[in-house]
Amino acid sequence: MGNKLYHGAAWYPELWDASVIEQDIALMKQAGINVVRIGEFAWSNMEPTEGKIDLGFFVKMVNLLHENGIETVMCTPTPTPPIWFTHGHPERMYVNDQRQVMGHGSRQHACTNHPYFREKAALITEHIARANGRLPGVIGWQIDNEFKAHVSECMCATCLTQWHQWLEARYETTQKLNEAWGTQIWSEYYHSFEQVPQPGPAPFLHNSSLSTMYQRFSMEKIAQFSDEQAAIIRRFSDAPITHNSSVAFSVDNERLFRELDFASFDTYATYDNPANYLLNNDLWRNFKSGRDYWIMETSPSHAASLASYAKPHPNGYLKAEAVAAYALGAEAFCYWLWRQQRAGCEQPHGSVISTWGKPTVGFPNVLEVEQARQEIEATILATRPTQAEVAMTYSDVSKAFLKTEPHQGLNHRGLTTDFYERILNTGIHRDVVPEGGDLTGYKLLFTPFLPYISADLIQRAAAFVAVGGVWVVGPLSGGRTEEHTMHTKAALGDLEQLAGVETVYTFPMDGSNSIGSAFDIAAPLSLWSSVFEPKEAVAVGTVTSGLTPGLAFLTEKSHGKGKIVMLGSMPAGDEGEEMLNRLIVHYADAAGVSLRTDVTIGTIVAPRHGADCDIWVVVNMDGAGGSVTLPQDGFDPNTRAIYRAGRLEIGRYEHKVIQFHR
Amino acid sequence: MGNKLYHGAAWYPELWDASVIEQDIALMKQAGINVVRIGEFAWSNMEPTEGKIDLGFFVKMVNLLHENGIETVMCTPTPTPPIWFTHGHPERMYVNDQRQVMGHGSRQHACTNHPYFREKAALITEHIARANGRLPGVIGWQIDNEFKAHVSECMCATCLTQWHQWLEARYETTQKLNEAWGTQIWSEYYHSFEQVPQPGPAPFLHNSSLSTMYQRFSMEKIAQFSDEQAAIIRRFSDAPITHNSSVAFSVDNERLFRELDFASFDTYATYDNPANYLLNNDLWRNFKSGRDYWIMETSPSHAASLASYAKPHPNGYLKAEAVAAYALGAEAFCYWLWRQQRAGCEQPHGSVISTWGKPTVGFPNVLEVEQARQEIEATILATRPTQAEVAMTYSDVSKAFLKTEPHQGLNHRGLTTDFYERILNTGIHRDVVPEGGDLTGYKLLFTPFLPYISADLIQRAAAFVAVGGVWVVGPLSGGRTEEHTMHTKAALGDLEQLAGVETVYTFPMDGSNSIGSAFDIAAPLSLWSSVFEPKEAVAVGTVTSGLTPGLAFLTEKSHGKGKIVMLGSMPAGDEGEEMLNRLIVHYADAAGVSLRTDVTIGTIVAPRHGADCDIWVVVNMDGAGGSVTLPQDGFDPNTRAIYRAGRLEIGRYEHKVIQFHR
Amino acid sequence: MGNKLYHGAAWYPELWDASVIEQDIALMKQAGINVVRIGEFAWSNMEPTEGKIDLGFFVKMVNLLHENGIETVMCTPTPTPPIWFTHGHPERMYVNDQRQVMGHGSRQHACTNHPYFREKAALITEHIARANGRLPGVIGWQIDNEFKAHVSECMCATCLTQWHQWLEARYETTQKLNEAWGTQIWSEYYHSFEQVPQPGPAPFLHNSSLSTMYQRFSMEKIAQFSDEQAAIIRRFSDAPITHNSSVAFSVDNERLFRELDFASFDTYATYDNPANYLLNNDLWRNFKSGRDYWIMETSPSHAASLASYAKPHPNGYLKAEAVAAYALGAEAFCYWLWRQQRAGCEQPHGSVISTWGKPTVGFPNVLEVEQARQEIEATILATRPTQAEVAMTYSDVSKAFLKTEPHQGLNHRGLTTDFYERILNTGIHRDVVPEGGDLTGYKLLFTPFLPYISADLIQRAAAFVAVGGVWVVGPLSGGRTEEHTMHTKAALGDLEQLAGVETVYTFPMDGSNSIGSAFDIAAPLSLWSSVFEPKEAVAVGTVTSGLTPGLAFLTEKSHGKGKIVMLGSMPAGDEGEEMLNRLIVHYADAAGVSLRTDVTIGTIVAPRHGADCDIWVVVNMDGAGGSVTLPQDGFDPNTRAIYRAGRLEIGRYEHKVIQFHR
Repeated sequence: MGNKLYHGAAWYPELWDASVIEQDIALMKQAGINVVRIGEFAWSNMEPTEGKIDLGFFVKMVNLLHENGIETVMCTPTPTPPIWFTHGHPERMYVNDQRQVMGHGSRQHACTNHPYFREKAALITEHIARANGRLPGVIGWQIDNEFKAHVSECMCATCLTQWHQWLEARYETTQKLNEAWGTQIWSEYYHSFEQVPQPGPAPFLHNSSLSTMYQRFSMEKIAQFSDEQAAIIRRFSDAPITHNSSVAFSVDNERLFRELDFASFDTYATYDNPANYLLNNDLWRNFKSGRDYWIMETSPSHAASLASYAKPHPNGYLKAEAVAAYALGAEAFCYWLWRQQRAGCEQPHGSVISTWGKPTVGFPNVLEVEQARQEIEATILATRPTQAEVAMTYSDVSKAFLKTEPHQGLNHRGLTTDFYERILNTGIHRDVVPEGGDLTGYKLLFTPFLPYISADLIQRAAAFVAVGGVWVVGPLSGGRTEEHTMHTKAALGDLEQLAGVETVYTFPMDGSNSIGSAFDIAAPLSLWSSVFEPKEAVAVGTVTSGLTPGLAFLTEKSHGKGKIVMLGSMPAGDEGEEMLNRLIVHYADAAGVSLRTDVTIGTIVAPRHGADCDIWVVVNMDGAGGSVTLPQDGFDPNTRAIYRAGRLEIGRYEHKVIQFHR
Repeated sequence: MGNKLYHGAAWYPELWDASVIEQDIALMKQAGINVVRIGEFAWSNMEPTEGKIDLGFFVKMVNLLHENGIETVMCTPTPTPPIWFTHGHPERMYVNDQRQVMGHGSRQHACTNHPYFREKAALITEHIARANGRLPGVIGWQIDNEFKAHVSECMCATCLTQWHQWLEARYETTQKLNEAWGTQIWSEYYHSFEQVPQPGPAPFLHNSSLSTMYQRFSMEKIAQFSDEQAAIIRRFSDAPITHNSSVAFSVDNERLFRELDFASFDTYATYDNPANYLLNNDLWRNFKSGRDYWIMETSPSHAASLASYAKPHPNGYLKAEAVAAYALGAEAFCYWLWRQQRAGCEQPHGSVISTWGKPTVGFPNVLEVEQARQEIEATILATRPTQAEVAMTYSDVSKAFLKTEPHQGLNHRGLTTDFYERILNTGIHRDVVPEGGDLTGYKLLFTPFLPYISADLIQRAAAFVAVGGVWVVGPLSGGRTEEHTMHTKAALGDLEQLAGVETVYTFPMDGSNSIGSAFDIAAPLSLWSSVFEPKEAVAVGTVTSGLTPGLAFLTEKSHGKGKIVMLGSMPAGDEGEEMLNRLIVHYADAAGVSLRTDVTIGTIVAPRHGADCDIWVVVNMDGAGGSVTLPQDGFDPNTRAIYRAGRLEIGRYEHKVIQFHR
Repeated sequence: MGNKLYHGAAWYPELWDASVIEQDIALMKQAGINVVRIGEFAWSNMEPTEGKIDLGFFVKMVNLLHENGIETVMCTPTPTPPIWFTHGHPERMYVNDQRQVMGHGSRQHACTNHPYFREKAALITEHIARANGRLPGVIGWQIDNEFKAHVSECMCATCLTQWHQWLEARYETTQKLNEAWGTQIWSEYYHSFEQVPQPGPAPFLHNSSLSTMYQRFSMEKIAQFSDEQAAIIRRFSDAPITHNSSVAFSVDNERLFRELDFASFDTYATYDNPANYLLNNDLWRNFKSGRDYWIMETSPSHAASLASYAKPHPNGYLKAEAVAAYALGAEAFCYWLWRQQRAGCEQPHGSVISTWGKPTVGFPNVLEVEQARQEIEATILATRPTQAEVAMTYSDVSKAFLKTEPHQGLNHRGLTTDFYERILNTGIHRDVVPEGGDLTGYKLLFTPFLPYISADLIQRAAAFVAVGGVWVVGPLSGGRTEEHTMHTKAALGDLEQLAGVETVYTFPMDGSNSIGSAFDIAAPLSLWSSVFEPKEAVAVGTVTSGLTPGLAFLTEKSHGKGKIVMLGSMPAGDEGEEMLNRLIVHYADAAGVSLRTDVTIGTIVAPRHGADCDIWVVVNMDGAGGSVTLPQDGFDPNTRAIYRAGRLEIGRYEHKVIQFHR
């Protein structure tokens, strides 16, 4: 890795015969595929009966690919334990929150915490690693596949026991747990850890702490499984390890990637939602800082299963995606899947080649990607993504909090994507950083939708502010403790003192006819809100009508060389969007953000820099074309054609690489 | 009780430490709180391990409150049995109609019919009653909390056995049950009571009799539990006993309150639905006739849980609610809850004081309530609600019938509230009376949406009519027997003869393009309908198009000095609303109803009378202001300011107390 | 049978006493009811305790009816096993796909594959057949009632075992099954048939083959039960046997009726959807070719249960339905039900007589039906339905495929009905033929929405084309194998060669802005689509924009004397409707279809022919009236009134019988 741009696909040679395999490899070469991912569901092929493990087929495949100039990401097949593992063993299966026990026949049907699962998973992974670990074709590893994509928290008996152990490790005594969770409420009070239930069927909602902590337990457990698997592989291979994850899954990605070597994600955003796609790139770049990420799965045309299908990409969009990814820091752009499934439940899913071995509707777009990849490869490899000055905090822990407490159907992903899109649309180059991510290098940090902000983040953000940063906190941030309870000293806990405000009231603003005024615009206020009395802060946005006129919903306090900005409520409607736009721009200016381009909405600029140059990769993502203003003359590093300073038009899904002398 | 107006709140001192308790009491005094409700979820505090009961904390709290001039409604904590009761005992838990067994961690998770639950509930209640029964601070009792708010009919094995016993007591032999329920249909026929199932999972609907009777069994059982608990308390206390109920719960409120001393309810209607709020007041006044009711729970601002929140009240609305309640016969207006929950699943719920001990957004409104309470207390205590002349029948048994037979998604609460609102909007003072309620004093009775009208009600209503009353029956009333079967002599059984009609057809009018004409207006007809051939009656409303032109949907028959009016169908749309308005006004006039005020919609007049005066409490409930016509000069009993006869303006959420010399 | 038109009703004398029975029979004679159906839910009456069987009551009823000139269709009561069968035997009950075990109290609650059910069902049926088989009043038999109306595939342990046996019989070895289903995917691979699961709870979708084959297993099993029951009856009776089925049930009707003597169906289409009603007639005529079908159930006014009701028929519509049915080949038009249910869950359902023994709102319409029946009986009996030239393939196997793979919520019944309606609206006389039906006599065949087209159908259709027929295949047809997998030689398998096309791409067109042009009109294209490169075919419709401009979505190839037309996509919107209309008319013309009448939409012409005449029965079905052009003079066979060639007006729900000299 590290010396080329990868263009890849997921491949399932175990499902086809030799002639198809031969045809596939020939076609891959034609399409410019230089890496494939194999093996992630093939456990029954590798170990058809318990204990009889034979990796011969996959070793052969890796070598065959290698001989043909195609490298391999080798996978572990643990999402699909074979029938010998599952049949007659309901106690090994995943149990959902309605207490339904899963059967064999889909994937993620086993409980990943069951000791026998762990034992057999370790064994098969050890065999795979041993057999493939030193093969020259293997350049990387993927553990399992899309952890917790179809399932979330398992409620089986094994998990119950481990939950109790996890709680004991966390709280030491039930007394501490009872105090932390406030279990005197509704007589939930526990006398032993064995009594703490899983959040299964109940007449009404469970205690928020129980619900949130069970999610955190589950997130930690799946990450530990990943850690275990990685440790086994490392004994036999030096190739870097990843997992193909997503913001949509019930995992804590930051924790998960902590013990992995590089980050990768799967994405099936439709073409009419490029912000969704771009957020992933701007986020995954930051799970393993300084190391390029992979797009491990995306469809050449459309996602589908027996039960649904997405809109196919218009011609041209796939190439725009690929160029944007490479420019934003991706080392690989890979398809799911190479050859359309003949059987199973994903037959209608988009692919590169059909079941009958012909190009699909996506194929011409794959060729376009390959052509673009070749054009930009040298330039991309010679440069690195430029450090963003603006960041938005991303938290899968908050995702758990919002699942427990959705207030009114709130969805973490939607809230986060919408907020990200507002920054994107200003033309500011940005990072989405995990909550534990390093804040060095940023000038402006947004932390919206974190009901719980850790003391660690507050401390690091305060330090960031002290040296000149601007930290915008909210909306919906800071009102809950780590245990998913309320603060008792102040609505937002220690944050208030730092922000120089007193939260006078918290309440739901929806339907309350509350209007707020800031940046010379008035907008309805919405969502669960905090309204402030500025103490050492000043009011920047004031509530002008509703229940709390005169109080502030937006405040600003200088702290060291920087500022802490509290956004207590969510401006809504068209005016609200405009207010948020002005807010972002205002604080970007205040923070001295310079990495902002005058680019039309729907087109992006990915800035990179090399030893002695800066480049911009400009890509039209919305199919409507657009333009960007060049601050100085530049040129195309391939053709050496000159781009003059000033307005530059970008066609439908077009991209341009523009190099500037520094 | 009986000598002041109460202003109260639910308080959970067991969840907080001593300093918070001290702060709470100080703040209560500041807010004018003179009563608190305590203990209803505190079983684990009172009996942390089985059999170790210690009421010391609550005795101390009652005394502490008393010392501070605050009285106590003491509760029994049976909605939340502790972990020692539930852990490892699925057989003691509530089972829903999908056969899911509830776990620990919410409330109402136990089966209230389980003998061991009853035993332990009796024991804890006896201890509480013994410890607190004679304390000077305890002025009343509340049994449990919101029976059947989160659950309805339990389907556990215990309930199955008791169901069989209940059936045997009711029917004596299976032969009688089989005949009553018509179980030859679909080969349901039972040979022993043990064979009668609970209405659990089935491929299609259950027999209506089974479904309805299982609900009645459940309603009777929970009432018996209440009776048992009340009997225990009475052994140790003379303070009156209530339960905080609602029309929304799966209980028969009339039966439930029969053995209790005073009535109370919980209400969380939003500000834009004042009819919903007012119906409760006009109904609860009549569960314990002649004795003031309590509003045991309402939010100072908004209801909420982790999963949802309601719109908060606009400023001013809370005071309007409180004044309306006191004027309509409430002795108490109490909040849920005093101090915002720190933990659990109701942290976002509106409260008087926040978790951090500060006023909430509702607090200024609480102060307004207290000021109003003080202003009107003397006048209210010196008078009684004036007897209404118009009544609407309310039946929780009908609620069960409509749950079994919703026809087309019909909802008992919605139908009832809408019909009530039509009466409300005429300005007529009204009662909502339980179906077994005394009809003395009324001139006009509406009985809509009672699929089953008991022989007792028919007999009493006939007597009411005989002495001059007007009884309007329908829509949707009378077509079912007590066993939830069809009549076989006539569509509406014996009612037809009394009403002097023959029901020619019954069928669903929706989508049949049926138009009815009455009171000089034509309107679409809807819902399951009966159309009549008048025999001794006369047609007042006639079907003019659709399947049955020429037949009557509205008839009138003189009986003694009064009239029986049959309304066979539901007029719909704007014209239907107007027709119903004219119908109400017409029969109010015909019945000689005089207690009607010329008040704008959205403003109410609560008439009261004292030894030598009449008063009106006028309250604007919709926030739009309004006006009322005073028939004579009156004055403010506090300020002695004169109100001249004629039009009087009432401001947004304003109230005025107007005294008239008789 | 065979010598009169029947006018009947379902009757439940076991639910009523002798006086009601007497009254019922008198009223039946008054209403013209000449056949009743009895006994289908009466198992508990016939065998109240296990093994004590007494058919006396039903023998008496048959004889009593016979004495009164009313004939009987005798039913077996197997949809409702009595309590002695079910109580305490959860292992005998139906289990749904959520693993919920049904209880007693509805119908279809037992597993029809349980050996003990089969044993007891055989026994009761033998007794019934023995007791009633030779009674002169019994003219026919109905087995069970509406198989699989409330349930679909049972997931009980008995079914699991039989599923394994069925699989073994079908696949012989697991190796063949694994290969056929592609179970290497997701490590589903089985080593023994015992390991193959039922498609119960799983984290995501099951393998398509598993889901579809489990449905086919279930369909085969219920048909075998029907076969077994029929065989028993035949030992004791010569009267023909049927089952009252529907397109809405989870059965393969073609397979089911294979071993029955005549076809019948139940229909509760509302009056505003006459195509739904007519499709049934045009389909059921073809399940037992040459033998008249029965409408075994329809409501005189409206369908209803406790939980819902349909719009009642306008006056006149019932007669239109009956005349259309008799004219289209029905021998009987029967109501469900005669007397309104007093108890159970269908009390509000429309009936002929009310529970109190009076005519219902449907009764006048029943009298109209009887009058029409008498008027047309001689003419109908003297003629036969004329062979249609146009047919549309109907497949319940496809219903199973679409349940497994709904793509995007696609509904087999809706798709099929809409396509049928397009043909209906052209005025072309048509058949809906089961996929195994004989194609002799047709000129034009449409085969839409058959994801899997059997080799047998392809072969027979090719032969049909070779001799001059036109076969229009698609949309959504042919892309799946019998095992519900993809073809691997070509997208549509062998069909492509026959059709002279190569499918270049298959993908979902929705949201892709694809436009197709054909027959001088452009329309959006939708649904999962195939786009073609014509090889030996010619393009008739071409994609003009979207992802695949220039490729064909509609092709035509001559084959022998006829044509094969491939319709690869679904034209949508108003333009799409017009395109489909032109397509139908175009190929009807091309095929030389002459049996098409110039009739307004909403009015139908049912052509029949006798020894020396042709007749048309013209019926207005939409209540709006209409007209038809007579190609020559005709006359009314009853009145001899002359109808002149040219335009003839038909009134609201009016019918006219017009005889033409040949």
